[in-house]
Amino acid sequence: MGTTPRPIPGVKPLKTLLLPPFVLTLALVGIQGESHAMDNVATERMAEESHRQDSANLLIFIMLLTLTILTIWLFKHRRFRFLHETGLAMIYGLLVGVILRFGVHVPQSMSDVVLSCAVNASPATLLVNVSGRFYEYTLKGEVSRSKGHQVQDDEMLRKVTFDPEVFFNILLPPIIFHAGYSLKRRHFFRNIGSILAYAFMGTVISCFVIGLIMYGFVSFMKVVGQLGGDFYFTDCLFFGAIVSATDPVTVLAIFNELKVDVDLYALLFGESVLNDAVAIVLSSSIVAYQPAGDNSHSFEAMALLKSFGIFLGVFSGSFALGVATGVMTALVTKFTKLRDFPLLETALFFLMSWSTFLLAEACGFTGVVAVLFCGITQAHYTYNNLSPDSQDRTKQLFELLNFLAENFIFSYMGLTLFSFQSHVFNPLFIIGAFVAVFLGRAANIYPLSFLLNLGRKNKIGSNFQHAMMFAGLRGAMTFALSIRDTATYARQMMFSTTLLIVFFTVWICGGGTMPMLSFMSIPVGVDSDQENSSSAVLDGSQRRNTKHESAWPFRIWYNFDRNYLKPLLTHSGPPLTATLPACCGPLARCLTSPQAYENEGQLHDDDSDFILNDASVSSMYADVTVSTDASGSRTINRKRSSTASTGCGPFDEGLDHELALAEHEVAIRGTRLVLPMDDPVDPPTTVTLPPPPSPPRSDPRRHRL
Amino acid sequence: MGTTPRPIPGVKPLKTLLLPPFVLTLALVGIQGESHAMDNVATERMAEESHRQDSANLLIFIMLLTLTILTIWLFKHRRFRFLHETGLAMIYGLLVGVILRFGVHVPQSMSDVVLSCAVNASPATLLVNVSGRFYEYTLKGEVSRSKGHQVQDDEMLRKVTFDPEVFFNILLPPIIFHAGYSLKRRHFFRNIGSILAYAFMGTVISCFVIGLIMYGFVSFMKVVGQLGGDFYFTDCLFFGAIVSATDPVTVLAIFNELKVDVDLYALLFGESVLNDAVAIVLSSSIVAYQPAGDNSHSFEAMALLKSFGIFLGVFSGSFALGVATGVMTALVTKFTKLRDFPLLETALFFLMSWSTFLLAEACGFTGVVAVLFCGITQAHYTYNNLSPDSQDRTKQLFELLNFLAENFIFSYMGLTLFSFQSHVFNPLFIIGAFVAVFLGRAANIYPLSFLLNLGRKNKIGSNFQHAMMFAGLRGAMTFALSIRDTATYARQMMFSTTLLIVFFTVWICGGGTMPMLSFMSIPVGVDSDQENSSSAVLDGSQRRNTKHESAWPFRIWYNFDRNYLKPLLTHSGPPLTATLPACCGPLARCLTSPQAYENEGQLHDDDSDFILNDASVSSMYADVTVSTDASGSRTINRKRSSTASTGCGPFDEGLDHELALAEHEVAIRGTRLVLPMDDPVDPPTTVTLPPPPSPPRSDPRRHRL
Repeated sequence: MGTTPRPIPGVKPLKTLLLPPFVLTLALVGIQGESHAMDNVATERMAEESHRQDSANLLIFIMLLTLTILTIWLFKHRRFRFLHETGLAMIYGLLVGVILRFGVHVPQSMSDVVLSCAVNASPATLLVNVSGRFYEYTLKGEVSRSKGHQVQDDEMLRKVTFDPEVFFNILLPPIIFHAGYSLKRRHFFRNIGSILAYAFMGTVISCFVIGLIMYGFVSFMKVVGQLGGDFYFTDCLFFGAIVSATDPVTVLAIFNELKVDVDLYALLFGESVLNDAVAIVLSSSIVAYQPAGDNSHSFEAMALLKSFGIFLGVFSGSFALGVATGVMTALVTKFTKLRDFPLLETALFFLMSWSTFLLAEACGFTGVVAVLFCGITQAHYTYNNLSPDSQDRTKQLFELLNFLAENFIFSYMGLTLFSFQSHVFNPLFIIGAFVAVFLGRAANIYPLSFLLNLGRKNKIGSNFQHAMMFAGLRGAMTFALSIRDTATYARQMMFSTTLLIVFFTVWICGGGTMPMLSFMSIPVGVDSDQENSSSAVLDGSQRRNTKHESAWPFRIWYNFDRNYLKPLLTHSGPPLTATLPACCGPLARCLTSPQAYENEGQLHDDDSDFILNDASVSSMYADVTVSTDASGSRTINRKRSSTASTGCGPFDEGLDHELALAEHEVAIRGTRLVLPMDDPVDPPTTVTLPPPPSPPRSDPRRHRL
Repeated sequence: MGTTPRPIPGVKPLKTLLLPPFVLTLALVGIQGESHAMDNVATERMAEESHRQDSANLLIFIMLLTLTILTIWLFKHRRFRFLHETGLAMIYGLLVGVILRFGVHVPQSMSDVVLSCAVNASPATLLVNVSGRFYEYTLKGEVSRSKGHQVQDDEMLRKVTFDPEVFFNILLPPIIFHAGYSLKRRHFFRNIGSILAYAFMGTVISCFVIGLIMYGFVSFMKVVGQLGGDFYFTDCLFFGAIVSATDPVTVLAIFNELKVDVDLYALLFGESVLNDAVAIVLSSSIVAYQPAGDNSHSFEAMALLKSFGIFLGVFSGSFALGVATGVMTALVTKFTKLRDFPLLETALFFLMSWSTFLLAEACGFTGVVAVLFCGITQAHYTYNNLSPDSQDRTKQLFELLNFLAENFIFSYMGLTLFSFQSHVFNPLFIIGAFVAVFLGRAANIYPLSFLLNLGRKNKIGSNFQHAMMFAGLRGAMTFALSIRDTATYARQMMFSTTLLIVFFTVWICGGGTMPMLSFMSIPVGVDSDQENSSSAVLDGSQRRNTKHESAWPFRIWYNFDRNYLKPLLTHSGPPLTATLPACCGPLARCLTSPQAYENEGQLHDDDSDFILNDASVSSMYADVTVSTDASGSRTINRKRSSTASTGCGPFDEGLDHELALAEHEVAIRGTRLVLPMDDPVDPPTTVTLPPPPSPPRSDPRRHRL
């Protein structure tokens, strides 16, 4: 730190770089005694130099991000929506990659020493005995075999290349957590069945379809003699798994901005968030399946079953862990008065969420999956216990982290196209991959949509299906999975191809979202709550029936959640003393927070308010006429209804309330809407409700359920 | 990721650990051809295992932090102020360190391979040729010579030990930036002369006093035969430099909470923030000075001068760089309409601030120093351009980062006492160090205070001097500097001793702050703005005179800042068209923001408001009687005045205004206080102003100047 400044590779990338002569100094090392001092100095210099290079490398990325932010602003300012910020970040990354690759020339043979000892292992840690002093070295990875001596040449590019673990440990968790934390749970839960089908079955189908097609291509390539290394069937499946994960970032940002139909949004978002999780677990299961036997790369039913078992175990383990930490955070924030200190509260929230990830990874589950469910749990329970200040802070913090991580990953993607040194671009493989990805997506969307439409009354229209097909971008997760291991020929080829797929989908599909939407005649500018699904028109009774039938497992869940979990984990809901059986009295009293008793008085108001709310919710969906009498029973004459819910019993009312409103919304609504209910002389007259004003709804941060 | 779970060191630290048999697998590696697959699997396993261990290690710290947060809450909740949170974090760290050290036993000889090749160098990167395949290894550092084979035993402890660069690259920058960003600039600038004296001269004095005393001790130890290795005079000076940096964290948190006298607070805070910077630059200058010649460890006047030159160069370079990035951010936020997108704005602010650090490091300056001045600049200019949302976000973000980083460092400190493996505890050296640190601090505070009191009218009382002496805690910076290089015997002994000094000062001095304050009869509970310096009682005219004399360089600066810099860099202040000479008209028009013209109309109000503000500011300092007549001239009869400022001309009014008020405060005050001014029939009567309500002042986030 701070002696004579020397040229630094990253900062002045266009100049020919002269590295300091510390390598020469090093040659003198090893004579014991008085030379220690110089030795230390040399070590210090070296550390200093390496530190400076690290700084310069990071600086490149920070500059890239800054540039991206400014351009994003310009784009937003000029309302230029053709290219999304992630696409932009990639372009800037590409440019810097080109500069680093071709603009900078590092002179040869001044950096590394090649040891050619007779070692027959590559342990994680290496101790080198240099004339009686031990130096510790850590394994960074295998360096491309074929290049051998060429390695030294690209020293600098290698320096810019981050440890892939950075993506999994630092960059992905905030992105995925943010997805869970900001999930619009109402729409998500309404379409949960379809989402699960697309995310689980769809991803598995896509994985196998892509795997099989790629195996065909690879076999063909082997015959033609285009294959430069081994490529097994499990590799094909692995490739299928990593490119099956669609990315929630790009398209959804555009969808959100354009206010595309909420159901389409929910389907795409839910699918892409969950299939990230599925793809991770799937790919690691395939890796785990590999070393099963001697002829390990053939296909066995037994091993597949084992893989499936691993898949289920890892997924449910991660799920349980994520939910468990979320619940723990909720309990801690409920039973301590931490809310008096928003800073402590925010810090705790942040740390607990992060620890979910680490705990899952340390236990052999997948942290990203755990963090996703932790995010959902935190939003559902913990969020209600936080002080308003902390609610803002946590939302803003994760929003920022998500933004930075996302743009970092995308600009890094652009950079690696040129900075990664072991690219294997095989035209045949690339063509095959594009075909396979396209067909895999089609095999996911169309058959599943057909099957789902058999059960769904609110059909997924063919234009929606095409939109989902088109919006299957590949992004951060695919990249992170493919860069994780690039040691073998097969993996290197996969990585290079994956990069191209990501570029293509983000630029072409992402950029083409707007024209696609208008071409598919999917309406934009739909208010998130005033949804107007154009796909299906049903009459009221039929809808209610469907709702009633399809919702029963969820209704049980919501009832349970509302009566037991929410009161236990948050300050809201009815007190446990009211919902638990009498025998659990002391326990219930101990677990119920004082606020809940205060809520109790309001609950009747709330309950009566539900009806009006319910009506007002219904009235948002379409032009609805509501009849209300004093007893609270209603007649609803729908002119045109779509996906709306109609209350047909206390269950549905509770459910709808849960679906439609956050607890802390009730008070506001109660004062606003309770008046007509209290009107004692209200004959069974037909009241035409205007489209409700719903001011809190448009504000996403107050609208958490 | 996600196969069969194995025991992980960090998570189950009390069980005997069995590491997976991948080392055996590795022995098979090296046979070409079909064994590649297994080879890859082994590599993958290894990567997976190392990833899992990293997760577990990080998890330890996250858990520690969570525990610390909960205990902090308990302490705050119970108003238990005896132990500060940093002290707590250290205790928890210690406990975990003890558990890791004595509770966990890792079986020997299953991890590393010791290469005993005839290498006579230890380069940064090592390529190991394992049967034709190249593996890249990076240098982690030298492993303690004497222990040799014992190294393998403590594999796990070594894993927990972070790379020291983490402290400098990740943990320190947010702490230092936050210090700059949240600096109360009014009190800071009022005492700037004394602060600079303590921080610069004081630290240098302390460094040399400690260095000399330690050299005496070390010489004695050499005679007695207690010294196990080399220890040069430069090492002593280096030790002096690193332990001279006082820590702003612990005492000041207590001071802030107790509302101790603002001048004492400003002196201590200013000193500790700036002397961190001085200590860094000083220590690196000493390191740079070392390799000057052959007998490099003797003392030369010429080399000292060179060191001094380096010191000045690095310090001013870092200063310039920090200010430059701050100014650039201000310009960017001013001339783009980025404030429409708070997320982008916050991200940009964060990235620019971080890039300051990286840029400085990459250029060979010191990032921490740059980041400090960047923080001050950002708070002074950029903050005014940000949208209110971003103002909150940035403050909260850096507050959180600061909190996490601080507690992480302190719990890590506790941990290293047991996890660090090359401790050299030498009782004689430790005693010497404690004596030296005490005397060094005394040689800093008392003589300088005496000299400063010759010039200062507002004397630094002897109780203040004792408090400053007592409050010279050593913390994060001292630790970071000492852990940075622990390769040699001298450095290891320094590190161990430094740890003890930090523990002692944080626990004993930090914990004893409350009793110390009451013993020194320093009043607590003083309102930050209603300051009541108990040290000096002066009469008004004398004070005014002093102010007038001592403030002239600052007055010029403030005038320049107010008329040119603020209008140029922010939306506030008078438009440049009014302040720049007519010849610069077009440029001024181009650079002035539209808001500034809007401000112009208000400026007269503001100006007239200044007078009242000035009076109300004055009235905060003491019991003041203000006479106001319609023309705006005033007579102020002080009953008892202290450090207050009295406006005696337009310069002083502007200055006081700048010192006392943020631009965006003016509007509020204008409407609140302007009425008595507008009163046309206001005879020269004596108006006794009550202590002003100053509601915005108590809110720190609105109170930026």
